[in-house]
Amino acid sequence: MMNEGMNSLDYEARVDRLREKMEDGGIDLSILYQRSNVRYFTGWRQNTTSFSILFITQDELVHMVPKLDKKAVESECWIGPSDTYEIPENPMRKYKEITGFDNNSIDNIGIESEIIFNSRLKNIKENIDCRFSDVQPLITSLRIIKSSAEQELLKEGALAISEVMTDIIEAAEEGMKEKDITAKAKMLMDLRGGETYSFEPFAMSGKNSWLPHRTSTDKKFKKNELILVDMGLVWRGYCTDITRTFTVGGEPDQKKIDLFDAAYEAQKEAKKKVGPGVKAKEVHERAVEVFEEYGLSEYFPHLTGHGLGYDIHEAPILDEGQEIELKPGMVVTVEPGVYKEGIGGARVEDMLLVTEKGHEELTKSERKLI
Amino acid sequence: MMNEGMNSLDYEARVDRLREKMEDGGIDLSILYQRSNVRYFTGWRQNTTSFSILFITQDELVHMVPKLDKKAVESECWIGPSDTYEIPENPMRKYKEITGFDNNSIDNIGIESEIIFNSRLKNIKENIDCRFSDVQPLITSLRIIKSSAEQELLKEGALAISEVMTDIIEAAEEGMKEKDITAKAKMLMDLRGGETYSFEPFAMSGKNSWLPHRTSTDKKFKKNELILVDMGLVWRGYCTDITRTFTVGGEPDQKKIDLFDAAYEAQKEAKKKVGPGVKAKEVHERAVEVFEEYGLSEYFPHLTGHGLGYDIHEAPILDEGQEIELKPGMVVTVEPGVYKEGIGGARVEDMLLVTEKGHEELTKSERKLI
Repeated sequence: MMNEGMNSLDYEARVDRLREKMEDGGIDLSILYQRSNVRYFTGWRQNTTSFSILFITQDELVHMVPKLDKKAVESECWIGPSDTYEIPENPMRKYKEITGFDNNSIDNIGIESEIIFNSRLKNIKENIDCRFSDVQPLITSLRIIKSSAEQELLKEGALAISEVMTDIIEAAEEGMKEKDITAKAKMLMDLRGGETYSFEPFAMSGKNSWLPHRTSTDKKFKKNELILVDMGLVWRGYCTDITRTFTVGGEPDQKKIDLFDAAYEAQKEAKKKVGPGVKAKEVHERAVEVFEEYGLSEYFPHLTGHGLGYDIHEAPILDEGQEIELKPGMVVTVEPGVYKEGIGGARVEDMLLVTEKGHEELTKSERKLI
Repeated sequence: MMNEGMNSLDYEARVDRLREKMEDGGIDLSILYQRSNVRYFTGWRQNTTSFSILFITQDELVHMVPKLDKKAVESECWIGPSDTYEIPENPMRKYKEITGFDNNSIDNIGIESEIIFNSRLKNIKENIDCRFSDVQPLITSLRIIKSSAEQELLKEGALAISEVMTDIIEAAEEGMKEKDITAKAKMLMDLRGGETYSFEPFAMSGKNSWLPHRTSTDKKFKKNELILVDMGLVWRGYCTDITRTFTVGGEPDQKKIDLFDAAYEAQKEAKKKVGPGVKAKEVHERAVEVFEEYGLSEYFPHLTGHGLGYDIHEAPILDEGQEIELKPGMVVTVEPGVYKEGIGGARVEDMLLVTEKGHEELTKSERKLI
C-alpha cells in the first residue's frame, strides 16, 4: 500500500531544488516542522494528531517521525529506513549525534521563522550557536509554482468538488439545517475519494450569512434567503476550495438579487485580471472597484483570493499591498464577498490556474444565483 | 443563534479562576493564542482556518478576532463588543494602545511557552521589556478537572460515539475499503450531531494494522484479518475517542485471537487501576505488566491513555514517568495496543471519568473481538 501521490510526484527532485536554493542563500541546514512543508518533501501523509521533523543539508536528509509511525514510514516513504529515526526527547541533540556536526560545520540554519514553536527553536539554540535565517521564502518559491503533475491533481480535485457543489445545491431545501447540508457535503467529498477536507465546510444562511458566521449551525434554511456554502476536499494532498451562493423555495427579493449581482460581477471582473505579470494586489483592487461602483465596498471585509496546494491558504495572497506578480503554474482562488445586515451574504469562489496566456478555470459548477 | 455550549458552561467563572491563579503566580497579563485555551475562556467556536487572541489581566479582558468574525463574535460571544477588536498587524502594540499599559504596570507576562509561534513571541517582546512565565500549567490545572456540566457533555458525546462504533462494526464487511468505513463513520458522527471530528478517523486492517498505519487507505478488508477503527466526534466542543478491534467474514486464527486477548486484558487491568490518588504512570505500568506476561511488551509502542476536553490530547497523560495523581473530574482514555508483524494490530480504547470511588466508564459499546 503506497502512501497516495507517491508515484506521480518527484519528492527527491523537490529536495534537490531546495538544496540549490539553500546553497545560493547560504543556508547550511534546514529544519522543517510545518506539516505541509514536511509532506512536500517527504510525500508522507501524517495522521492529524502527529508531527514529523525533516532536517536537510547538501549531503544529509534526516526524517524524524513518531515511534508509532516509524515502521510504516520506513516501508513506504521514499526516504528509507537508514535516514528515518524516532522523534527523541531532544531532537537537535539527536541530530547532532547522527551527523556529528558542530559549530564549525554549521554557520546558518534555516527555520520556519514565523510559525516555529518557541520551545522547538529553544531546543535548536540550546544545541548550537549559529545564525538563523527564514527558510520559508525559499520553500514558498518552490511550492508556489505547481508542476504539471500537481496541476493535474488540482484539476481533478477541482472537478470533483465542483460536482459535489452541484449535488449539494440540488439537495438543499427549505427547512433543512445548515449542519445537514454540510454533513451531506462531507459525505459526498468522502465518496468522491477525497483524502479529507481542506477545512471544516460551512453553510451560512440568512442572518448567519451577513454576520457572517463561518461555522454551520442548527439554523434551518428559510424560503428565499441567501445561502452560502464554502467547502473544499483534499485530493491526494492538494487542497481545493469553492463557494456558491443560492436560495431555496423560490425567487429572492430584489435587494438580495442586487447584492448577489455585485459579488458575482466583482468576481467576474477580478477573474479577468488573473494572468501572468499581473500583481496580486491588482486582482484585489479590481474587486474593490466593482464594489465601489455598487456602493458596497465597506461590506467587503476580506481578501480577494489565495493560493492553494498542500495548504488551503498559501502564497500568493490576492489582497491589498501584495506586490507579487502572478506567474504560470500558480493556482489561486478568486472570491470577493459582500455581507449586508438585513439582506444577506453573497460570494462566488473559483479556483484558477495561471497560464502563459491568462488563466484556466478549474472549478466548473453553475455560478448564477439558483 | 447562540454559539453552541454557551448556556451550560460558565465562561466568565473560568476567567475569574484563571485570574486567581495569575494573582497567586504573580502573572500580570496572560496572552493566549492556542485555539482550545481561547475557546475555554470565550466559548467561541472558531472557523478551522482562523485564530483569535485573548489578553487577560485582573481588570481587563481583550478579545482580538479576525475582521471577518467580528460582527458574529460581538453579537454572540459573552465578551461584548466593547472588549472585541479586529486582529491588527501588530497585536501587542494595539493592546498597549487599548489599555495604556507600560513597563511599570506589567512585570510578568504569561504565555503558552511551548507552542507560541516564534513570530508572535517576538511581537510581544518588541513592545514590552519584562519577564515571561509559562501560563499553560495554570490553565491546565483548570482544564484538567471537568465540571459537572463538562462531564455531562463528555458523557453525551461518549454515548454518541459508542453508538456510531456499534453501527460501524455492523456495517463492515469483506471487500469494503478502509476509506469506505471511515466515510461511513464520519457521516454517522455528523448525523449524531457532532460538531466535527476529534481527529481524522482511521481504519487499519491486516498489514496496515501491524505497521501500524494511522490513516485510512484504499486497502480492502479481507476475511478474518484484524481491523482496528479509531475515531471520535466533537460534542459541543468536547472531544471523544474510542477504538475497537474486530474482524469480518468469520473466526480469526488463534494467533490473532491471542494478540487481541493480550490487548484486551491489558486494557481491562489498566482500567482497574484508574481512580483517585493513583499516579498516571501506574496505569501505564499495569498495561506494560500484562503485555510482559504475554511476552509482547516490545510490541506496545505508545502511551496507555490521555486526557480529553477541548483538545483530543490533553493532561493527564497516562505514560511512563507521569507522576501526576488522578483526581475526581478527570476524563481519560485507556488504550494500550499491540502490533505484531504477520499477525495484526489490536487495541481497545474507552473513555473513563475519574470519580470519588474509582471511575465510571463513558464509552459503552461491545469490546470483545467480533
